[in-house]
Amino acid sequence: MVRNKDARSQDYSEMATAYRPSHADATYDAKYGIRNYQGGGRSSARETIGRVAAGAIAKKILHQYAGVEIVAYVKRIQDLEAVVDPNTVTLTEVESNIVRCPDGEAAQRMIDRIEQIRDEGDSIGGVVECIARQVPKGLGAPVFDKLEADLAKAVMSLPASKGFELGSGFAGTLLTGSEHNDEFYLDENGNWRTRTNRSGGTQGGISNGEAIVIRVAFKPTATIRKPQNTVTNQGEETVLAARGRHDPCVLPRAVPMVEAMMALVLCDHLLRHQGQCRWFDPQ
Amino acid sequence: MVRNKDARSQDYSEMATAYRPSHADATYDAKYGIRNYQGGGRSSARETIGRVAAGAIAKKILHQYAGVEIVAYVKRIQDLEAVVDPNTVTLTEVESNIVRCPDGEAAQRMIDRIEQIRDEGDSIGGVVECIARQVPKGLGAPVFDKLEADLAKAVMSLPASKGFELGSGFAGTLLTGSEHNDEFYLDENGNWRTRTNRSGGTQGGISNGEAIVIRVAFKPTATIRKPQNTVTNQGEETVLAARGRHDPCVLPRAVPMVEAMMALVLCDHLLRHQGQCRWFDPQ
Amino acid sequence: MVRNKDARSQDYSEMATAYRPSHADATYDAKYGIRNYQGGGRSSARETIGRVAAGAIAKKILHQYAGVEIVAYVKRIQDLEAVVDPNTVTLTEVESNIVRCPDGEAAQRMIDRIEQIRDEGDSIGGVVECIARQVPKGLGAPVFDKLEADLAKAVMSLPASKGFELGSGFAGTLLTGSEHNDEFYLDENGNWRTRTNRSGGTQGGISNGEAIVIRVAFKPTATIRKPQNTVTNQGEETVLAARGRHDPCVLPRAVPMVEAMMALVLCDHLLRHQGQCRWFDPQ
Amino acid sequence: MVRNKDARSQDYSEMATAYRPSHADATYDAKYGIRNYQGGGRSSARETIGRVAAGAIAKKILHQYAGVEIVAYVKRIQDLEAVVDPNTVTLTEVESNIVRCPDGEAAQRMIDRIEQIRDEGDSIGGVVECIARQVPKGLGAPVFDKLEADLAKAVMSLPASKGFELGSGFAGTLLTGSEHNDEFYLDENGNWRTRTNRSGGTQGGISNGEAIVIRVAFKPTATIRKPQNTVTNQGEETVLAARGRHDPCVLPRAVPMVEAMMALVLCDHLLRHQGQCRWFDPQ
Repeated sequence: MVRNKDARSQDYSEMATAYRPSHADATYDAKYGIRNYQGGGRSSARETIGRVAAGAIAKKILHQYAGVEIVAYVKRIQDLEAVVDPNTVTLTEVESNIVRCPDGEAAQRMIDRIEQIRDEGDSIGGVVECIARQVPKGLGAPVFDKLEADLAKAVMSLPASKGFELGSGFAGTLLTGSEHNDEFYLDENGNWRTRTNRSGGTQGGISNGEAIVIRVAFKPTATIRKPQNTVTNQGEETVLAARGRHDPCVLPRAVPMVEAMMALVLCDHLLRHQGQCRWFDPQ
Repeated sequence: MVRNKDARSQDYSEMATAYRPSHADATYDAKYGIRNYQGGGRSSARETIGRVAAGAIAKKILHQYAGVEIVAYVKRIQDLEAVVDPNTVTLTEVESNIVRCPDGEAAQRMIDRIEQIRDEGDSIGGVVECIARQVPKGLGAPVFDKLEADLAKAVMSLPASKGFELGSGFAGTLLTGSEHNDEFYLDENGNWRTRTNRSGGTQGGISNGEAIVIRVAFKPTATIRKPQNTVTNQGEETVLAARGRHDPCVLPRAVPMVEAMMALVLCDHLLRHQGQCRWFDPQ
Repeated sequence: MVRNKDARSQDYSEMATAYRPSHADATYDAKYGIRNYQGGGRSSARETIGRVAAGAIAKKILHQYAGVEIVAYVKRIQDLEAVVDPNTVTLTEVESNIVRCPDGEAAQRMIDRIEQIRDEGDSIGGVVECIARQVPKGLGAPVFDKLEADLAKAVMSLPASKGFELGSGFAGTLLTGSEHNDEFYLDENGNWRTRTNRSGGTQGGISNGEAIVIRVAFKPTATIRKPQNTVTNQGEETVLAARGRHDPCVLPRAVPMVEAMMALVLCDHLLRHQGQCRWFDPQ
Repeated sequence: MVRNKDARSQDYSEMATAYRPSHADATYDAKYGIRNYQGGGRSSARETIGRVAAGAIAKKILHQYAGVEIVAYVKRIQDLEAVVDPNTVTLTEVESNIVRCPDGEAAQRMIDRIEQIRDEGDSIGGVVECIARQVPKGLGAPVFDKLEADLAKAVMSLPASKGFELGSGFAGTLLTGSEHNDEFYLDENGNWRTRTNRSGGTQGGISNGEAIVIRVAFKPTATIRKPQNTVTNQGEETVLAARGRHDPCVLPRAVPMVEAMMALVLCDHLLRHQGQCRWFDPQ
């Protein structure tokens, strides 16, 4: 089917008045008395392009300064979970398929699931995992600006995110302290390290030199073609079925966003660490 | 056993040199070259007393301005999960037992588990849930300072927190969009509401008038009496078994902290909303 | 003389290596190891265009909210001082001549002086005065963000500014307290006012409802055609005589910048005041 | 006369209702609906004790890092101006008399004037000059946070300040560019310096290695014993003559405040410079 500008405008005409369930339409109207229903305006994930661009510079600085490597990937789509070794996964593996999942088998099942969901006019969500390796010890502030606090804010400001975990996360609450604690040892250079990394790379809000590991939950896309009950901005109940081209699963496109936010937070804390702690004893 | 000052000082003597696994000891030394091993210094949860005090004022403002009610409680200890109706739970129910869990039966099992774990010299974690009811529509900023982003940072800055969820959180990623979306309807006053609340009270980072629902994962306490392998700040491997009085489960004491952070974030955004959006059309 | 792109490039060729005295050339190189010598880069006053644009919006808000009127003008060029009544001066009067001085006689002498200085290949500075009328009582914060503190920072961030005064300013230090104090009286509506305004519209950092009056000193432009001793970025002493088109007096063009900064600071404090103080007692 | 607590309370009884002209009384009431008339509350210069304490630490850091020396002194009381060489003046000279003026002759005349003014129940103001020597090149940010902008805000947030100057300040506006510009030369080590310092130590908002020189105008103290017309917070006109112990001239006590603010701003910018510009090329 040939799509043209008129067709696309028509796609949005209903949404000019009817609020899309679980979308930012209604809250923007409540707050500002105005909204851009065509493409979501400021609530569109298009906004994140600036973050990704800035993140690219932050990655370069982190790599040049300390050899930091940041890799994110789709860890799970709905119930389809990938098997990934965070210590060795590479960008090349992530980019080897369209769904940005480095586990090839899982990736194929994810792709199949997404196509099926698209055909149904529905949507699905999942989990992005992001790892930062070679992060220097000492990044993070002791009270409000703990490293995990700033990482949490950074990724929870991405559209559609509903949850954040560091290291063992929610699953870690099932363990006892003796099972969960990361024992220290001395490596070949006499530096302290931890044998396990349930902490996810920080202790007391400050990086401990192990890999930073975070996971972010993204909900299923709000805009779907299935009809849903809703209301209009004129105060009438109605039924809305979105038309036009809508993404049935944002996860693959969220991967670079999460990477960018990780890079920006680490770079910011590296700058702060440099500013606060390295005046008299540089490098 | 009578405990005196000398006995307590002795409790900390080993920890003066040996780093406690998964505690802030080692990272503070790495960052600052100094740390307070007696009670954890700035990394101690005692620091949160100021947050709780400020939160009490924030709660008063929120309640006087808009009747906002904030209640937090222990939702889960290890695998013991409480059944709680977030729409009706009260502070009195929460405070009716020592573990701050409004489900009396679950509370008793939690208390038994904590006592058993204490006897074993070990520790456990769990999940605190916090709800804010009667929050006005419109709180939150559209891009970086989304309401859930600031809530995530606020609670992830609490000691021992490892995860954050809003509304459906990680579990919501298993649903499809048609299952997950919150349909709109008009209430008896003609105001739009949502029938379900998988969004957890925000859409596009801005409050939608439904209850704000968050959950925070707290890991098992790092300091335990069981012996663990570790290293000293002199670069020697050793075994540490903490002595003295250590809390086997911080969850009940985390409840007022989470409540305070919720109150502070909401009050801050109410102030910002008042400043930005209500000049010409007050109240 | 017809000027073309090649001619202009040539104008800057010497300045590529030789630092212009009292310009940002040398300090930018010292800080960043790089600089844009063509037009001054980030140190150029062209940067202020964004401030002026934002200030236009701030002025609209201030006027719609409270009828605030902001007018700036050239008060003095070198030793040529204008006579202006700050309580009645209008934008039309300011814009009635090219030098933006509402005192027509003084304006003509200023214009003559600037032309003479241009012919000499030299430059001159002066003072811009800015007034804000109908500012509501109560704007400003009690300690660090006093209204005059934020105004001072705002205008001292403009290129070439060397001094800031509020109300009586430096001259006020010659008076005694009994001469300087602004006595209170009740106006026809029973509201307190002050008979004089040596305070310049604030007391204790908070606006008192009288006109805000500030003055900003701008130094003579650094770039001149007269030869000056200087050094190159290669560490050699040399003599530099700037070529190309350089402004012999920035004062007329500084007027809208000062107005914009006044508007932005007032608007920001109005927003803060609205956020902090008007929750329960709007307007 | 023996003064006791009752007498002092009585001193303030009138001021509980009558607003002191040019004091923060009336504006605090207008903004907050409440004020502390006993001693001025938050508008009292007592608030600056925390700034002076923090400034002492900042001075230590600046001195240890780069040998920075900061000295402030009373430059002028009313029309009595001291002759001081900012390049050589020392703390010892400043502290050698009660008025904190390193010019002994002028100091005596200032002391006589202050005593005379106190006898008259009146007050006077003046100018504090502050110099920072050995400041490294490169401190300051290029646009909004120019070094002079942050210095201006810092000192204009001190109670009773009415004006700020850097280097040549307002007097510099009387010169031409060829008279005002600071020519560059190479010192014995081949480093660029300026022969004069009309810039006051910054160019384009960034320190140039020459001494930072600022001046701050302090108005005559608002609270005087002479009777003045004023109004009460009940909306009645009245006459007020302050009783109790009031300072006829705050200048000597403002000296350490200005020093502290200079130190804090420089230390803050040193930290930022360290954070931004010295990652790969330390010291």
